[in-house]
Amino acid sequence: MSLFSKHESTIKKAIEALHSREFFAAYTEHPSPTVYGETADADGKEKFKAMRKKKFEELKQTNEESWVGQEESPYFSEPLGATYPSFSTATLIERANKSFHSWRKVSPSDRAGILMESLEGMKSRFFEIAYATMHTTGQGYMMAFQASGPHAADRALEAIAAGYEELNRFPAKAMWDKPMGKYNIQLNKEWRAVPKGISVVIGCSTFPTWNSVTGIYGSLMTGNSVIVKPHPGAILPIAIVVAEIQKVLAANNMDPNTCQLAVDTFDKMITKELAEHKEVKLIDYTGNSAFGSYLEALPGKTVFTEKTGVNSVILDSADDVDKVAANLAFSINLYSGQMCTAPQNFYIPEGGITTASGKVSFDEFAQKLVDNINSLIDNPKAGPFVLGAVQNKKTCDRVVEAEKIPGKVWLKSRSFENPIFNKARVATPVIVEVDGSKKEIFSKELFGPIALLIKTKNTDESIALAKDMAIQHGAISCGAYTTSSDVKEKIADEMALAATPVSFNLTGGIYMNQNAAFSDFHVTGGNPSGNASFTNPEYVTKRFTWVGHREPVKV
Amino acid sequence: MSLFSKHESTIKKAIEALHSREFFAAYTEHPSPTVYGETADADGKEKFKAMRKKKFEELKQTNEESWVGQEESPYFSEPLGATYPSFSTATLIERANKSFHSWRKVSPSDRAGILMESLEGMKSRFFEIAYATMHTTGQGYMMAFQASGPHAADRALEAIAAGYEELNRFPAKAMWDKPMGKYNIQLNKEWRAVPKGISVVIGCSTFPTWNSVTGIYGSLMTGNSVIVKPHPGAILPIAIVVAEIQKVLAANNMDPNTCQLAVDTFDKMITKELAEHKEVKLIDYTGNSAFGSYLEALPGKTVFTEKTGVNSVILDSADDVDKVAANLAFSINLYSGQMCTAPQNFYIPEGGITTASGKVSFDEFAQKLVDNINSLIDNPKAGPFVLGAVQNKKTCDRVVEAEKIPGKVWLKSRSFENPIFNKARVATPVIVEVDGSKKEIFSKELFGPIALLIKTKNTDESIALAKDMAIQHGAISCGAYTTSSDVKEKIADEMALAATPVSFNLTGGIYMNQNAAFSDFHVTGGNPSGNASFTNPEYVTKRFTWVGHREPVKV
Repeated sequence: MSLFSKHESTIKKAIEALHSREFFAAYTEHPSPTVYGETADADGKEKFKAMRKKKFEELKQTNEESWVGQEESPYFSEPLGATYPSFSTATLIERANKSFHSWRKVSPSDRAGILMESLEGMKSRFFEIAYATMHTTGQGYMMAFQASGPHAADRALEAIAAGYEELNRFPAKAMWDKPMGKYNIQLNKEWRAVPKGISVVIGCSTFPTWNSVTGIYGSLMTGNSVIVKPHPGAILPIAIVVAEIQKVLAANNMDPNTCQLAVDTFDKMITKELAEHKEVKLIDYTGNSAFGSYLEALPGKTVFTEKTGVNSVILDSADDVDKVAANLAFSINLYSGQMCTAPQNFYIPEGGITTASGKVSFDEFAQKLVDNINSLIDNPKAGPFVLGAVQNKKTCDRVVEAEKIPGKVWLKSRSFENPIFNKARVATPVIVEVDGSKKEIFSKELFGPIALLIKTKNTDESIALAKDMAIQHGAISCGAYTTSSDVKEKIADEMALAATPVSFNLTGGIYMNQNAAFSDFHVTGGNPSGNASFTNPEYVTKRFTWVGHREPVKV
Repeated sequence: MSLFSKHESTIKKAIEALHSREFFAAYTEHPSPTVYGETADADGKEKFKAMRKKKFEELKQTNEESWVGQEESPYFSEPLGATYPSFSTATLIERANKSFHSWRKVSPSDRAGILMESLEGMKSRFFEIAYATMHTTGQGYMMAFQASGPHAADRALEAIAAGYEELNRFPAKAMWDKPMGKYNIQLNKEWRAVPKGISVVIGCSTFPTWNSVTGIYGSLMTGNSVIVKPHPGAILPIAIVVAEIQKVLAANNMDPNTCQLAVDTFDKMITKELAEHKEVKLIDYTGNSAFGSYLEALPGKTVFTEKTGVNSVILDSADDVDKVAANLAFSINLYSGQMCTAPQNFYIPEGGITTASGKVSFDEFAQKLVDNINSLIDNPKAGPFVLGAVQNKKTCDRVVEAEKIPGKVWLKSRSFENPIFNKARVATPVIVEVDGSKKEIFSKELFGPIALLIKTKNTDESIALAKDMAIQHGAISCGAYTTSSDVKEKIADEMALAATPVSFNLTGGIYMNQNAAFSDFHVTGGNPSGNASFTNPEYVTKRFTWVGHREPVKV
């Protein structure tokens, strides 16, 4: 049985899900022993431990120039010690070029089969990847498992499915038969989906697999060769994924350099050299806006970015304001505000929030939010695992700085004890009240656990500010609470014009930070937070070119 | 019956044709009296005559600032005399902004119905448009009728169909029902296709409707308002189309400013002012590469370009070389080389072309080509109508310059008599032999009736040069003649990598210059000749953004 036949039904289901947008997941998000095996977690932990202070020798890239690696665990607060083979840009490009010309000739079905099989390999290592993710990004265990494992694999499958569908959108051949009156002109036509060439995928430090696999699998599915350039602070999780891809390529007698890992170090980053290389046609990037905008402006490249944004929450009215505060407190605490979808600006009318039992004042709501944040942090069975650790020391500095923002500090950042990792770098949220007129304060992303409670004249001003932030500075998510259908439609319409998806009235176990493969588009591509979307048709169609040839039918 | 119901079956057929790529045409390309009416041609001519030296008062744009118009007929060699209302950029943008917010709320079906109805209006004026096209572009009557009338309308329908399909690609609503073990999370989700805003469509002087209607209809279909900025030398044909669109809008109680005409003059062009305006989000452009590249680099805009290229013909082997020469002679003569798909560089091996009856030498083939060109020009029933007139005096200057190219001049440009228009500006092809080593000579577009016969070492060098030209300077079309399946596949593969469609072994009544709506992608978007393609999915998906909102299902 071909690899494609083996995985065909999953690909078909994924394509259906992309169209229906209904719930679908091919990989189980819970680290369940019944799904993954009784010892899978413990085995994964041991394998991760064994990778520390060692060379990562699983890659099939030969003749490395040196071994490098500078990762640090935010939980251990010490270097991870893993090292990776390093290669010059010239070597990487030469190998990518060579592998491109064989990979591009592999049929879409065979490519899909190989890529699906590599996801099976990734699945067998979800726990190793989870621990590697924890100890590079600082994510809590559950998020690390879900985001870097099953959720990432589902996003990769999404890219495979979208690519497969688009490559089959037009026929390989057709006969064009034009009546001319007394005779017909008949042409045999054929269409080729021509991949663009070498693709460079630039990873970020907080979601090293989730944010990279879509570009990797999107480019590979459409016939391009890929160079994966991870963030020097978060290599191991994606190194495991690349190793699995190379393993399947080699097992099928294909060039493992079709997908290369390009590791660099903080003191000698190779990202610009790679991105600017004339042979590089495709660039995927997740990270800060300045570098993302530089990449977008490079001439002659097709660039897919996820940059930063200012995410808003509009508070107008609610049935039960306590449930709202509990839900938002979780969103703020989750991974210490280090998600690109985390809320930052909370717009609350000076007259308060309308509820079934009357108005809840600005101050009352602020206090409820603070209380909920604190009670989650102080719950030893939940807090440390929800907040996790802080990936970058600069984030802690930013949190301290945030306390100096002019306005009432409702909650100061503080420390807490992680019951497992006593040296973990942690930071709890800082909450500051800001007046709606002080736009200069809240008109930028304050990455990390920093929330601003912005006092507005009314909900109309809240909407106008949230919309303006999204248009000027980008936004990836928006939360809104209202019991009025008119206000809801106004928010839906205005935020849609700012290309920002809105989660309305979330309470209970679902959060605005989360978004689901096959249903939620991640980033819309329509505001400055990024120019691409997981996974809309453009995300894959821009990776290849339709070229049609024709010839008269021989009589 | 709604306008959508009236046209639904045509839209459905067009969508099917876009997928099958088989022959389809909704508008009859022959100016047949049985289709268009016995007096349609004569009536159209009269109406065109009546438009000369008059104000064009059909537009529903009010409060013009002045009346301007500088068109000249290349056949009469005198001004057309029509004038058009002119508006400031500020007025155009203000009106476009206002109309955008009503038009974006019109349903895709209603938009499609209105746009289809406007094409019916256009159809009723195909002959007027044909004469207006002749007397602005210099096209011969038959090309003017076909390209500006039925072929343009089919390309517009293509954009409507592609847009309609993409707008319906994802559901407006879905229920997302995620099993969580003991309970389900249920979200009502909705997706909105949010148009980007104001679209500016910049026309060219040679194909004033064909090259503009795709952008106009693509943008309108996807909910954007459109400002049509024609070339100051070719306004009337597209003015008639815009008037028809405005007529249908007004008849359906919609704002006619949803599609505005923005006429300027050679001495005061408003293109940059419009393109750079912050409210303008979409730009469609056909024209020279320098301006096209400037537009592509404008930050924050989605830009669709068709620029220029160097089109090649690769001559390797043929069954009947005389048929080849006849076919290519027609391609060179057609509209005096002023089509963007016209061939320029003819690569012929120094050892000659292999045929069934032995080798045909370089010189023999050159002479055959020259003889065929001459005999077509000198056929009074065909020549003047195939060549037409020259739109721009600079093209004539370029033809004269071309005779100074170092190399054997096989054919000098000359004059001929047009039996109807004795003052017509005409120029016949100049044919120059160039050695394959003199790349600097043939590495640029020489717009107009200029053909270079490039002597190469062999077919491999011919292919390498054609590919390199396309990659470096762009190419929209390529012709190739070979009887070898290996050589054919090599050309198909190499030119596909240069994103250039190849017409193989064309003889008889079909030419490499031609390409058909619903089947041939016009420009691939994959080389410097342009970044967009009529009409691939991206051509419409880039005009709007998918935004998804969600809310828990109320229990």
